[in-house]
Amino acid sequence: MTDTPAFRPDARSPRGFQDRRARDLRAERTLLARVSAVYEAHGFEALDTSAFEYADALGKFLPDSDRPNAGVFAVLDDDEQWMALRYDLTAPLARFAAQHWETLPKPFRRYAFGPVWRNEKPGPGRFREFIQCDADTVGSARPEADAEIIAMAVAGLEAAGLARGAAALKINNRKLLNGLLEATGVTAAGQKLAVLRAVDKLDRLGPDGVRLLLGEGRKDESGAFTKGAGLQAAAAEAVLQFVAAGGGSRSETLDRIAGVIGGSAEGDAGLEDLARIDAALTGLGVADDQAMFEPSIVRGLEYYTGAVFEAEILLDTLDERGERVRFGSIGGGGRYDDLVARFTGEPVPATGFSFGVSRLAAALRAAGQAAADAVRGPVVVIVFDGAHMPQYFQVAGELRAAGIAAEVYLGTSGMKAQMKYADRRLSPAVIMLGGDEIAAGTVTIKDLDLGRSLAAGVQDNETWRAARPGQATLPRGEMIPFVQRILKG
Amino acid sequence: MTDTPAFRPDARSPRGFQDRRARDLRAERTLLARVSAVYEAHGFEALDTSAFEYADALGKFLPDSDRPNAGVFAVLDDDEQWMALRYDLTAPLARFAAQHWETLPKPFRRYAFGPVWRNEKPGPGRFREFIQCDADTVGSARPEADAEIIAMAVAGLEAAGLARGAAALKINNRKLLNGLLEATGVTAAGQKLAVLRAVDKLDRLGPDGVRLLLGEGRKDESGAFTKGAGLQAAAAEAVLQFVAAGGGSRSETLDRIAGVIGGSAEGDAGLEDLARIDAALTGLGVADDQAMFEPSIVRGLEYYTGAVFEAEILLDTLDERGERVRFGSIGGGGRYDDLVARFTGEPVPATGFSFGVSRLAAALRAAGQAAADAVRGPVVVIVFDGAHMPQYFQVAGELRAAGIAAEVYLGTSGMKAQMKYADRRLSPAVIMLGGDEIAAGTVTIKDLDLGRSLAAGVQDNETWRAARPGQATLPRGEMIPFVQRILKG
Repeated sequence: MTDTPAFRPDARSPRGFQDRRARDLRAERTLLARVSAVYEAHGFEALDTSAFEYADALGKFLPDSDRPNAGVFAVLDDDEQWMALRYDLTAPLARFAAQHWETLPKPFRRYAFGPVWRNEKPGPGRFREFIQCDADTVGSARPEADAEIIAMAVAGLEAAGLARGAAALKINNRKLLNGLLEATGVTAAGQKLAVLRAVDKLDRLGPDGVRLLLGEGRKDESGAFTKGAGLQAAAAEAVLQFVAAGGGSRSETLDRIAGVIGGSAEGDAGLEDLARIDAALTGLGVADDQAMFEPSIVRGLEYYTGAVFEAEILLDTLDERGERVRFGSIGGGGRYDDLVARFTGEPVPATGFSFGVSRLAAALRAAGQAAADAVRGPVVVIVFDGAHMPQYFQVAGELRAAGIAAEVYLGTSGMKAQMKYADRRLSPAVIMLGGDEIAAGTVTIKDLDLGRSLAAGVQDNETWRAARPGQATLPRGEMIPFVQRILKG
Repeated sequence: MTDTPAFRPDARSPRGFQDRRARDLRAERTLLARVSAVYEAHGFEALDTSAFEYADALGKFLPDSDRPNAGVFAVLDDDEQWMALRYDLTAPLARFAAQHWETLPKPFRRYAFGPVWRNEKPGPGRFREFIQCDADTVGSARPEADAEIIAMAVAGLEAAGLARGAAALKINNRKLLNGLLEATGVTAAGQKLAVLRAVDKLDRLGPDGVRLLLGEGRKDESGAFTKGAGLQAAAAEAVLQFVAAGGGSRSETLDRIAGVIGGSAEGDAGLEDLARIDAALTGLGVADDQAMFEPSIVRGLEYYTGAVFEAEILLDTLDERGERVRFGSIGGGGRYDDLVARFTGEPVPATGFSFGVSRLAAALRAAGQAAADAVRGPVVVIVFDGAHMPQYFQVAGELRAAGIAAEVYLGTSGMKAQMKYADRRLSPAVIMLGGDEIAAGTVTIKDLDLGRSLAAGVQDNETWRAARPGQATLPRGEMIPFVQRILKG
């Protein structure tokens, strides 16, 4: 027998998962607290469902399959039922609402935030666990319920720290394009889908490229041919006019849409919905630059049954090559009527909005609105002599009692390493309490912020030093005001 | 072919998982915010690791096994590596600390909270997902680091809302019993474990029962025989004296322990640790009734290598049969030196404290200290006429701008159902805005709190009504002060 060395696992996170440290967590918690306050002010109650749902409740079973399909993390429970981690917050809401429908106050309004998990291929900036924040109204078919969700999203983004003008809610309605296609004789689901896919490429290909995709098809630069939706020329033009109808105030856009949508019952219903959303938004004080109608918004149209909305960050940011790009979408939502019906058989109208918390936090950083700074460390009490530990702790306690974060250094290194530790923690100051100070009832305080300012060239050495001593020995009773002055900067 | 009806999954949570609604979430968030503030004031930084870790990093692999062992939820990733959901917050900390050890400020101090998952048999009050909150100092062997964790636990429980006297930290040190056993000639690990198991039954069996289990063994009422630890009578008496040494002040307990522990090197080291913890606690202002030495605390002694602590709720609560029982432990911790070494081979001293968030919230409810009330609903604006929706939203917006949660009813039911809805939401008031009110620039406010007080017999009908009208029609400008008066109660 040979000696086998002890097994030493690699210390690393699984692929696609990340650790978040103080700076990011602070930004995220502040953001969620502010958005939660907005949602609660609108009468939405907090709900937290568990990480696991039964896979069938998530709808993650393919027909004739005995394993959950791709995209979710699933485990077989010991009673032979498949459970899967939630991949969004809507599916658990649907399960909850269906389970408790009889006893819930209706319409049921809830908000929720928490991690969701996607079993997908990880990549740069593409994680398999991330935080979402959702608000939904279940049990109201009124377009005003959509308007309220939109107004709440606007208020939430602003409360989170995005200045007015930095974000906008863009609103479309699935009924409009449906009605338009119906008026031009398109009724097959496959053809509608091809139209949606073509419209979705407007940003990238422009109207001419989309015209080809709406018609016979398009050959790209490489020579590859994409088959088109097969619309007649007049129908394709109507679609192009429709998606170009955005811009200006909500009522101007409505007028333009009315001019091109062409009189189908479904199109008229879509127009009526938007008119009521406009009126409610105006009543809620949401201006035309905060929420606008934009017929070219396609994303999610396959999933939603009526209004659809997207929250777009209007800031430019720099990409990996240093080029300016639009930050883009951070969330979206819309009206959906079939989720609860999956359980109960009865359709229940619902509408909601969801945003990515990390993505909003990144937008706030890009906007310079939040927590770009590293988190401040505590005041560090230096350890000279183990026998004086109780006195060090007393000083740290006095600082904390005054609302100042403080700690006693608890390693075993010497003075120099302790100063370096305090500097790395971004401590504002260290407190030194040698035998002399203890005997005299004094403390020595070293201002680390000053050192950092001087090192960064923020302050002129001479004038600054005159106003602010870098180090001072003071009676113990003057310690707190001195540290408070340092913290004020 | 027959028509198969659409598949309708059951709307239910998986076994052992639960939904949490507004009341519980509010209590939990308040609790975590307050405890976080205490931990940050002590210089601990927030850290959040992902739900998944590699199963080998969690230590959840049996030797010669190619599947993670029981107790965790594990999935095989598509690169053939097993990942498992964390079952506590210590194992991810160990992985994180080992991964970043070179670049972390040391000692590394972090706190964390979040869900953990246990793949165990669920039962009443026994969940497979629950929230833990931990604080740990990694890289300090000083007993003062233990003292600080203890002091922080004391301060955290008090900040969370447990009045002084409602909880206590009980402290032991593994070295003491080890030293005592060494002095009596017990060195085999199996025999030590048998002694620990015997001591752990002190509460249930009393000293006489434990004496039998320390010696040859004990026959219970059913006649079943439990083999004992096989200690000589003198050694068993020493152990019993040791575990009875608690009570009184920390220094009195130290004196009693010193009298029975009997001069082994390890025992003396344990005594020295406790003396330093006592001095640091005193420096930190932690009194004898908040944190005490208790040699009978055994739990976790197999896992911890030095100090061990348990947070005990001293309140009585009622069990299922209505009998008064001690609420008991809500958390614990201690010193452990081998977790990081699993990855790096180098032992790193660490100490920490962990508590169950739901369990603490339950203790706070039992103490009447927190959020027993259902969460207040919003003021509800009644809908009479869909055409007036924008005006209703305007009123709701005015209330929110004044800091009052408000919503427009968005269902389609009539007046009576709307009043019932507002009542079920625990709304303080409803606002009625009919055509007359809109024309006259007034609102009608109905005080629902008053109705609830009268129904509950809280107030005498006559005197109360005189001071507080149940319903009033007022100029729009007087709406906010009127509702604020209702909210003040």
